[in-house]
Order: sequence, then structure tokens, then C-alpha cells
Amino acid sequence: MTLLTDLDDVGRDPRRGGWSRHLGDDAESTLREWFTEQAGRRGLQVETDANLNLWAWWGDPEGPDAVATGSHLDSVPGGGAYDGPLGVASALAAVDALRSRGVVPGRPLAVVVFAEEEGGRFGVPCLGSRLLTGSLDPDRARGLRDPDGVTLAEALTSRGLRPEHLGPEPRRIARLGRFVELHVEQGRNLAPRGEPLAVGSTIVAHGRWRLSFTGRADHAGTTRRADRRDPMVPAAATVLAARATMEAHGDDARATVGRLHPVPGGTNVVASRVDLWLDARGPLPQALVDDVTAAARSAADAEGCTVEVRAESVSDEVTLDPGLADTLATITGAGRLATAAGHDAGVLAAHVPAGMLHVRNPSGVSHAPDEHAEDADVAAGVRALADVLEELCR
Amino acid sequence: MTLLTDLDDVGRDPRRGGWSRHLGDDAESTLREWFTEQAGRRGLQVETDANLNLWAWWGDPEGPDAVATGSHLDSVPGGGAYDGPLGVASALAAVDALRSRGVVPGRPLAVVVFAEEEGGRFGVPCLGSRLLTGSLDPDRARGLRDPDGVTLAEALTSRGLRPEHLGPEPRRIARLGRFVELHVEQGRNLAPRGEPLAVGSTIVAHGRWRLSFTGRADHAGTTRRADRRDPMVPAAATVLAARATMEAHGDDARATVGRLHPVPGGTNVVASRVDLWLDARGPLPQALVDDVTAAARSAADAEGCTVEVRAESVSDEVTLDPGLADTLATITGAGRLATAAGHDAGVLAAHVPAGMLHVRNPSGVSHAPDEHAEDADVAAGVRALADVLEELCR
Repeated sequence: MTLLTDLDDVGRDPRRGGWSRHLGDDAESTLREWFTEQAGRRGLQVETDANLNLWAWWGDPEGPDAVATGSHLDSVPGGGAYDGPLGVASALAAVDALRSRGVVPGRPLAVVVFAEEEGGRFGVPCLGSRLLTGSLDPDRARGLRDPDGVTLAEALTSRGLRPEHLGPEPRRIARLGRFVELHVEQGRNLAPRGEPLAVGSTIVAHGRWRLSFTGRADHAGTTRRADRRDPMVPAAATVLAARATMEAHGDDARATVGRLHPVPGGTNVVASRVDLWLDARGPLPQALVDDVTAAARSAADAEGCTVEVRAESVSDEVTLDPGLADTLATITGAGRLATAAGHDAGVLAAHVPAGMLHVRNPSGVSHAPDEHAEDADVAAGVRALADVLEELCR
Repeated sequence: MTLLTDLDDVGRDPRRGGWSRHLGDDAESTLREWFTEQAGRRGLQVETDANLNLWAWWGDPEGPDAVATGSHLDSVPGGGAYDGPLGVASALAAVDALRSRGVVPGRPLAVVVFAEEEGGRFGVPCLGSRLLTGSLDPDRARGLRDPDGVTLAEALTSRGLRPEHLGPEPRRIARLGRFVELHVEQGRNLAPRGEPLAVGSTIVAHGRWRLSFTGRADHAGTTRRADRRDPMVPAAATVLAARATMEAHGDDARATVGRLHPVPGGTNVVASRVDLWLDARGPLPQALVDDVTAAARSAADAEGCTVEVRAESVSDEVTLDPGLADTLATITGAGRLATAAGHDAGVLAAHVPAGMLHVRNPSGVSHAPDEHAEDADVAAGVRALADVLEELCR
């Protein structure tokens, strides 16, 4: 899809590989400008809501029972080209398809871009949709810090935006009748089925916990074993405990440490602190986290260190709207797929009937440069989304 | 010492605590300007050699059998105020003391500031003295990269300096007759002895090895255990192996992982690569590294990952010049102290009779904000260094 390949050069990350596009950086800003420009070409009326989400309207933005579709444009660090942008580009392409079919929507249709879905800069995923729906306290959001210590409030202010406006927009939500998010498949289920598309059924419970181990900085060469309180040791034990716990909790459990940050991080310095982030998912993520936390505390005690555990975001299992899922399945002929990845559709689902369409990912790799969808499957996704929007907007 | 407290605000690191002063950053540049200004006030003639080291001369820089003293001004990330600057400030204060005594050196006296002693930016400690003495290949040095991927050659060029000039300066070395470095004690030996000063005897063998684990990036939520090749798992096992190996190799062995960097480093991403740095010291650091490496390979194999091991710098044990040590002990009345910390004096020692004076550190903490020396001990260090320089310059 040309719309997607046009973005190929935006936010390339030569150090990590793939693409890095985070809230407020040059790449993400470029993508927002691109979206605004593309929406304008299509005669859609673009607005930014109080929570940094972009809305492009076909029809009256103030009208009732609107149908919204879209996804996000930010990425994980060193991520792939499809996670997020495929849903936005497919939404714009579906608008084109409806126009070429001569469809005039019988209700307002919005293409939406949610902000900071990956939580790549401020740590909380689905930041824009959580704020919009009120599932994230705006005071807490304003105080979130990026890796450079900049708060969300400061980041907004420096861009001329108003952090005091962050927070729930119930009237905006009340005007939404349905939300459908198209997304590249994460994991490899459709390839074995031989199917290009699936309708989302559930989103597994998931969350992020930060474990901060505190010890005492000292010289790597001169500090004797007996004098060491090295937080890297219990942090490493916790990484291994996360793996062991994942295995113990069964096939549907996930526990991952992909981010770990020693402070001060000098080669010849025993660290004073190590922060690590535990991504946990499955039927009972809290039980999994409790087991990892117990191991972390035990390892910290043994080293004379302390550990502080903080939940950064927690999402219960979401069942996407069954009626909407039936409608999507009837229109598209696709089967069902549960996903272990979080989505804005999962956040919206508590307030608006929300559904998802997944597009086959041949390797299953996601959040990585190898993430992929074949052109034919992308085209099938656009056609299916257009069919769905045509029906929902009748 | 006012000279040292004047530097208190330079390079404060609010994120890590302590001070961060790295080659070419604002703080390190400020310290170089400060040194040049202080040397000028004392009528010393300042020059920068081909390897970024600063020399301030009392007497003829081209004269033979010079006596040099000094240390470095860079720090580890989030380091203390004494490691490095104490030796430079004490050298300047010793010049003041000689002047007030009416001493006129009978041979050239230089106060020297060696560049990038901690290797905090480009990874190789004692970068300036290694290049000066020819123990680091200038081609390799030019290609060293900082954490942002900038090479040393690029960093020099961007400052208007000439990377092609890096390399050994045998004529400069040949003009040196003796080198004495004063340094804050690292470790806690002098406090129990009740002694403010010690004369350096040996510097333990030490080095830095980078272990790079490669796996496959993927989604933290959707990737099943069987499909994971997560380099964080063998990296964590290696941290624990380093600790176990240190314990197995006896009281004088040190193995530390203070720096570990997952790529891409996203909370919801299985890492594609993890780099960690092993700082190893002791009678047989290579044997220690071999044991850790074996554990790393085994853990990497078990996870379907690979590991690449690269020595970034290796220093054999150094015995500081025995005759000079005897002279220092006679003049100062101080006892001897072996150190497990690397120093420019250890690099110089292969070419020039080199000695060290250590100033008591009450807590022993070093490479950390708590690093400290009492004012009275600092004053004793300055007096002892002045006595030594007066004698050596006769």
C-alpha cells in the first residue's frame, strides 16, 4: 500500500534497526503532519482532542452514533513498520474505497490516531485512549517521566499545548457508536490457518511493573565481595525468575524483561540502582508478578539491597463486543482470534462497542523490524474494513 | 582545598547523583578551561599534546629529565569529586607551596591532565596515556565509538582537532624523568591503619570485556516460550556467573557488571541484543574471564542465542618503580599500598619511573558521590607532593 510505503523513511533507527517513533519526537511529529495532510486531501476535518489523539471526520464531528476506525502511529523502540500505521493507513484507504463505491455514510465516520499507544516514551501504553476514557488519572499522567526525566506536562508545555486540559472527554465518547481497529497480527496463527484476516475476540490481561533495586555505588576494582551491595545481582536473578515463572504458569503466560537500566551505568562502577521493567500477561498476570516479586525480594535481601515494585499499567482481560464481532465476522467471513497484545480497542471497549480486524503476519514477528504483512493481505484488510464501515455507517 | 571546591558545580549529574564529566562534554571542557586558566595564573606554559592530554610547564618543556605530576579531570558516570581532580588540584597547590618556599626547580616540572582516564565515553580507560605511550593503536582509537555511535575521530574533528595526529609521542616520553600521581584512596585500607597517606606499590591486573548476546526481537506479549530467543536471559545468567566466579577465584578477584544495555530496550519487546561489560581484576583476570565466558556461551546456547566476547582493554599487573617508591616513602614517611584501580601512572610505568601517593578515603567508597577525603588529609597530600617534587626537581 503506497500510503504505508510512503512512511518508510520516517523514524528509521540506525542503532537499533527498524523504526523508532515516540510521542513528540521528529518522526512522530512528521507522521502526525502526514496524517493531517492525508486527511485534508480527503476532505476530512481534522482535530486534536485534549489528549493528543487526532480525529479526522467525514460528516459532522458533533453528530451522534459515529463510527470510528484507526490505530496509532507511534512505535516501540526499533519496532516494525506495520504495528499501528497499518491500521491508520488502511482506514484512510478504506475511506478512498468508500468514495470510489459512491458510499455516503449515513452517520459520522472518524479516522482516529491514538497517542503513545506503545508507551515508548512515558511508559504507560495506550496513553491517549486511557486519558480520553478516564482510565488513567490526568494528574498521574502529567507527572509521568520520559527516560530523560522530562514530565508529560513539561513535554506538552514545551510544544505550546495545555497539560491542564488532559483528562476524560465523556461527551466525545458518548458520541461514538462503534470503534473498529485494524491491526497487523502479532503472533503466528493465521498463516497455519491459511487465512488472511481474523476478527478479534479477546485481549489477554496484561501489565507493566517496574522493579527498582537499590544498592550502593562503589569502585568495581577495589570493592571486596563482603562490602558489595550490587543491585545488578538481584536484578539478574529477577530476569531469570521471570523466565522460570513464565514456564511455571503455563503456555498462556508471558513474562519478559526487555528493558533494564543500571545507574550510573559505568563499566568500572558497581551500580547504585537498577531499574527493570517486567511485562507480564496471561490469565493471571498478578499471580505471575507476585511470584517474580517474591524472588526479587529474596535476591535483594541476600545482597543487602532493597527493591521497590510499582505497577505502571495494568489491564484486565477484555472481551471485545460480541455483537460487533459477529457483525465483523459475517461481513468479512473471517474467523476469530484472541490476542496477547494490548490495543486502544481494548481500552475503548469499556465505553464503546469495539472490535478488531487482524491482518496475517507470515512470520508472526512483531515489535521488531521483521514484522510484515503481504501486499495481498493488506489489500484484503482494506477491502474488509471498507465493507465493515459501509455496513456500520448505513 | 579551594581549588577543588571551586569545581563543585561543574558536571553535577541530577539523574545519577554525583558528577559526570566525559571527554568533550560541557563539564569536561569547562574543567580543561579551568586548568588552563589556573596554570596561566601560576605562569605555567600550557600545551595540549597530540593525544588530548594537557601539560603545564614550569621551566623548559623541551628540557631533559623532567618531573611530571598530575592525574585526570574526567569521571565515571555519576562519580565522585576526588577521583582525578584531587591529583590535578594537589599538583597545582604543590606548585604554590614550592613557590612560597622559594624553590626554583632544577629541572622542568610539568603538571599534566590525562584525557579520558575513566574511559567513560569511548570505553578504553587511560585513553590519553595509552595513546601517548603507544600502548593503544591509534587506528583502533580513532574507530572507538561512544554510546551515541560517534567515533573518537569524528568527535575530534567536530572540535577542530586532528585525529590523524593521535599516536605515540616517544620524544615527549623520552624527556620525562619521573612521574608521580597523587590520587584519592580507592578501597578502605588507610583508615584502619590510622595513616593519611600511602605510597603506591602495585596496580593489580585488570581489564574490560564486552559480551554481546544476540537473539531475536519479538513481541513480549505474543511470543511463546518455544519461539523465544531472548538474549536478556543468558545476559542475566552471565551477571550471576560473574559473581559466582569472583567468589570462586578468591579474595583478590573482582568481577563486576555495572553496565548492561538491551537493544532495542522496549518494555514490551523481547530484546534482539544485549551488550554487557565485564570488569575483571585480580591475579589472573583472564582465567576469571574465561570462566565467565564459558558460562555465558552455555547460557546463550541454551536460549538459541549467540555471544561474542571482545576484550576492550587489558592491563597486566604493574609494579610501580621500586626506587621511586623508596624515595617517596623516605620523603613522606608513608607506608605502601597496592591498588586494584587502574591509573595513568600504571600506563606510564612501562616507559618512565612512575609512582603514586594515595590520600586516605575514610569510607573507602569510590567511583560514587560518597567518595571523600578529609581536608586535613588533602592538605597532608599537598605537603607530601610538594616535598616530593622539591626533592625530585633538585
